[in-house]
Amino acid sequence: MNIESKNGTVVLRRTKEQAPPRSWRDYVIGRPLATADAPHQTISKKIGLAVFASDALSSTAYATQEMMAILAAAGTLAFGYVFPLSLVIAGLLFIVTLSYEQTIHAYPNGGGSYIVSRDNLGALPAKVAAAAILTDYILTVAVSISSGVAQVVSAFPNVFEYRVYLAIGLVLLIMVINLRGMRESGMIFAIPTYFFVVILYINVIAGLARYFLGPMGIGISSLGMVFNPPPLELATEQVAGVGLFLLLRAFSSGSAALTGVEAISDGIPAFQEPRSRNAGITLIWMSAILGTLLLGISFLAAHISAIPSAEETVISQLARTTFDGRGFMYIATIAATTVILVMAANTSFADFPRLSAITANDGLLPRQLTYRGSRLVFSRGIVALAFLASLLIFVFQASVTRLIPLYAIGVFMSFTLSQSGMARRWWKIGKLKPGEEIQEAASRLHYEPTWKTKMLINGFGAICTAFVMVIFAVTKFTTGAWVVIIIIPSLVLLFSLINRHYRELAKRLSLEHFGVPPLVHRSRVILPIGGVHRGTLAAVRYARTLSADVTAVHVSTDPEETRRIQEKWEVWGEGIRLVIIESSYRRFMEPLLMYIDEIYQKRQPNEVITIVVPQFVPRKSWTNLLHTNTAGALRKMLMFRKGIVITNVPYLVEE
Amino acid sequence: MNIESKNGTVVLRRTKEQAPPRSWRDYVIGRPLATADAPHQTISKKIGLAVFASDALSSTAYATQEMMAILAAAGTLAFGYVFPLSLVIAGLLFIVTLSYEQTIHAYPNGGGSYIVSRDNLGALPAKVAAAAILTDYILTVAVSISSGVAQVVSAFPNVFEYRVYLAIGLVLLIMVINLRGMRESGMIFAIPTYFFVVILYINVIAGLARYFLGPMGIGISSLGMVFNPPPLELATEQVAGVGLFLLLRAFSSGSAALTGVEAISDGIPAFQEPRSRNAGITLIWMSAILGTLLLGISFLAAHISAIPSAEETVISQLARTTFDGRGFMYIATIAATTVILVMAANTSFADFPRLSAITANDGLLPRQLTYRGSRLVFSRGIVALAFLASLLIFVFQASVTRLIPLYAIGVFMSFTLSQSGMARRWWKIGKLKPGEEIQEAASRLHYEPTWKTKMLINGFGAICTAFVMVIFAVTKFTTGAWVVIIIIPSLVLLFSLINRHYRELAKRLSLEHFGVPPLVHRSRVILPIGGVHRGTLAAVRYARTLSADVTAVHVSTDPEETRRIQEKWEVWGEGIRLVIIESSYRRFMEPLLMYIDEIYQKRQPNEVITIVVPQFVPRKSWTNLLHTNTAGALRKMLMFRKGIVITNVPYLVEE
Repeated sequence: MNIESKNGTVVLRRTKEQAPPRSWRDYVIGRPLATADAPHQTISKKIGLAVFASDALSSTAYATQEMMAILAAAGTLAFGYVFPLSLVIAGLLFIVTLSYEQTIHAYPNGGGSYIVSRDNLGALPAKVAAAAILTDYILTVAVSISSGVAQVVSAFPNVFEYRVYLAIGLVLLIMVINLRGMRESGMIFAIPTYFFVVILYINVIAGLARYFLGPMGIGISSLGMVFNPPPLELATEQVAGVGLFLLLRAFSSGSAALTGVEAISDGIPAFQEPRSRNAGITLIWMSAILGTLLLGISFLAAHISAIPSAEETVISQLARTTFDGRGFMYIATIAATTVILVMAANTSFADFPRLSAITANDGLLPRQLTYRGSRLVFSRGIVALAFLASLLIFVFQASVTRLIPLYAIGVFMSFTLSQSGMARRWWKIGKLKPGEEIQEAASRLHYEPTWKTKMLINGFGAICTAFVMVIFAVTKFTTGAWVVIIIIPSLVLLFSLINRHYRELAKRLSLEHFGVPPLVHRSRVILPIGGVHRGTLAAVRYARTLSADVTAVHVSTDPEETRRIQEKWEVWGEGIRLVIIESSYRRFMEPLLMYIDEIYQKRQPNEVITIVVPQFVPRKSWTNLLHTNTAGALRKMLMFRKGIVITNVPYLVEE
Repeated sequence: MNIESKNGTVVLRRTKEQAPPRSWRDYVIGRPLATADAPHQTISKKIGLAVFASDALSSTAYATQEMMAILAAAGTLAFGYVFPLSLVIAGLLFIVTLSYEQTIHAYPNGGGSYIVSRDNLGALPAKVAAAAILTDYILTVAVSISSGVAQVVSAFPNVFEYRVYLAIGLVLLIMVINLRGMRESGMIFAIPTYFFVVILYINVIAGLARYFLGPMGIGISSLGMVFNPPPLELATEQVAGVGLFLLLRAFSSGSAALTGVEAISDGIPAFQEPRSRNAGITLIWMSAILGTLLLGISFLAAHISAIPSAEETVISQLARTTFDGRGFMYIATIAATTVILVMAANTSFADFPRLSAITANDGLLPRQLTYRGSRLVFSRGIVALAFLASLLIFVFQASVTRLIPLYAIGVFMSFTLSQSGMARRWWKIGKLKPGEEIQEAASRLHYEPTWKTKMLINGFGAICTAFVMVIFAVTKFTTGAWVVIIIIPSLVLLFSLINRHYRELAKRLSLEHFGVPPLVHRSRVILPIGGVHRGTLAAVRYARTLSADVTAVHVSTDPEETRRIQEKWEVWGEGIRLVIIESSYRRFMEPLLMYIDEIYQKRQPNEVITIVVPQFVPRKSWTNLLHTNTAGALRKMLMFRKGIVITNVPYLVEE
């Protein structure tokens, strides 16, 4: 123990070091970790890539196919546009990556779109960014788990009936693994992520080798066409030729590949020191993998004449063409794709709790979300995410088709806000003199000579992503994007209400401009009694230590019992005044409350009324059912009155 | 207000006369009644007959048929035994009625089998009687409602799917009507009961008139055979002739007509004064109606060659034969029968709550059951009965066939116990000297010269009903009576556990042999704080009125926040000692409890530790979700420690 004495106040410090006792939770999520262990819980670049990239990388499993599905409206010849469009998307990815690279270095404590918007654009854009990205994290879990389950269902059709349970079961499994802590869950999830990356590279490299080099490296392609491709489904509306609108729609569908790129910027604090550097390098690796895989798959898909179809994925067609049939590599490719789709959910589990803790700390969400659980993760956020995603899965019956239109708008909205915020930040930096520094909430501004270039990069990124967002909103409005138009403003409203509550509360509780509070001059004690027994006497004894002015009150519903109580009181009541209230309608609570109200109305300023309630505490909890919980009911009724204090004196707790 | 001063204690009496404020309940169950209205809530003989006889009278709707269904195993010729068997049952009814008539006069405050057994046979037989009869009341509700619904279903087969909901709906309807009070519900239910009695008498008299007198009173029967009767269903096991066992089985099935005869003896206090006389006359009327209807129906059923069948009831065959087809009188008979079957449940609603209040008052059931609701009925018992019966209906899917074997054993068990108890009572009276009197718990014993005759009547009744009970148990054991063999002992065990709890509690709380309790010598106050704000200061001010020895405790999970609290405390803490407990594992509750435990271990005898918890009270209840309810959690954790008092100082309740 450590004793300090400052300004006349004695302060004792003591530390409770011992770990909490063992419990069943230890087996599920591991032993509790001390706060001091926090630095050891950060993750390396390798694990960071697995944790934060699984969402982005999983999109390579479907981005090409989504573009082709749109282009199919203009016939198979239009598939020739897939590779050029992929080049444009890769360009967009390059710009967004550059842009986020700058963000990561500017916000070493985490620079998600919420923080960047808050520091540079103001409260409302920040709330919009938070609403957009939180919604998107929930949707990511629901969509990716549902699509993973859909893959399982196409392999085992019997499972269809149980798909909702299976999906919710997977959500809960990922929840439990994440509750074990960032580091452990990262290690668990790293294996399937790297497996996916390796398998897809083998696919692309083998395909390209066969195409360009041929079997013996003699430059004659040995990669043929897809054997027996699925039939081309007729699009609902056929178009005559490839127009600009069709290309834009295909482009916007393909840009879904960019969802998940922002994940690392939200998760910087999870990385080992030097955080920004490690996170930045991880981002570059992620984008490089994402870009090359996308380009490779799109190139090959067009050249083998793959057909977008609900019956067989483009990845499947590519794998069986590259590896000549459904052999080991084909099976590995399909398995890796299924697993990565389920695991994309994990990125949300890494980021959603962190972002909700940040917004909760700013007073936009309940403060409880800032609490770090026994394994140093924001366990309440993890549980909340699992609950909300499970709810979505249940409501939409794990249907990817019904969930997907809600998805991705939020991501591009937050991209735009984040990059606009960064552009504004460079603008502010450009106005500083060399050597001048400003400390903002989450970053430090100091003059940089290259601010103009950097502003241009972020500004251009913002324009591009805003453009994609508009295309998304227009082309998908009727199929479900309108839901987002309702959800995001509702969330913003909720944030504002919560924030107003916390701010008003803080103002009301603030000690600034607060005079010395008035002393309590007088104290009255009211002691409701239901009988005269040892428990009552304990309460009487206690009540007498509080004040000389004690009144016992008995509400009478049975004259016979009241007579007995009165007789006993005359013996045991220590001369304390007893008020008997006869209740004509056999009510107990109302007459007592009316009496307390009367006393309360007549009280003097600075008088406190204490209600001392003898509370029966059973030794066995089932016996609670055999007693009326008057103490609890009284507390609820009286809590809303200022100047009334409720005291419970427990009885019958002898060992 | 009325002030008395006795033995130095001032007692103030005041009456809250005004009725409780209006609420939605008034529309459902009526305005609350003052306790002083109780005598006006008793019922007349006419209404008493309707309330307490509906159960017994409803059995005339099926007793004859049940006997014939058993006799059918020996072929249609065996139906000739129906009338002789009915005569035996009427004789049994006569004995049981005489026996209960004696009980009613001996126990003017209600003499159900529980009370008679308790006063004359001892605690265990009393518990068995209570268990048997309470179980039977619940079964009566479930069976009679289910059979009423079954009648509706045979008229409207579409309803079948909804039968469980319909049955539970009817239970709830009867519950609500009973919550209105005995007098009002009696008036509501009197009309259908009398309608049934009148309609059945018209059936029987018209039938007998046609049989004996003929159309013009010339003595030649004009009552023919049943036209187009339902086919005779083959019994599962055919027997060669009418043996003793078959007759006994038929007799026991027919004696189900006696269920409900005990109802009046349980309900004596509901009658107007002179209670015993009124209740006794009602009992005789009820038995007379029951006996004559049973004999009449059995006589006619045999003479028109009615066939027992699940397709058409015997009552239906009788009515269409007597009234030559399905005319108005036929429809009225069927409707009256359906309604009386549903209403038989009402007798249970009149008696179950009363009996459960009596047993609760004796400490066998939770005391809450003794509370009279706003309409002076034992509303909690009414609700409990409705709940339990609905549960049975739900579990057995409103199937009469599956419920009926559980039924009636309990009634005959309680008949037997009740009459044995009465026989023992007369034996005790026989030992008194003339003029001598003994007051027992529920009745007064004084010498009567006719005690031997009366003992014989009760004893003979006990033997007869015990005989029927054994027949019941043997003939129905495998089809469900074994369930009763489990339920009744379980209930007896439950009664014993509850009783032991109340008795031990009373012993522990008793002031007999209790010295003057020790004075509280020292008082320590512990004040857990989560921050320093106006709410904390209010709690500090209050804590200082309790004791000079106040310690504030802060559990630190965030060093930054702790530093701020410490700084503020130095300004605002009024010099009170602050203990900061550093919690390595971010737990709040455990370190605080460990600290309190330490203080608690070191306390002196007669020292009280008061925990003053500042409790945040939101103005809008939704904002509760935005705060951790530390006060509530602490209260739960600390309640089990003797010598620790928990005080809540509410804050933020300004208007």
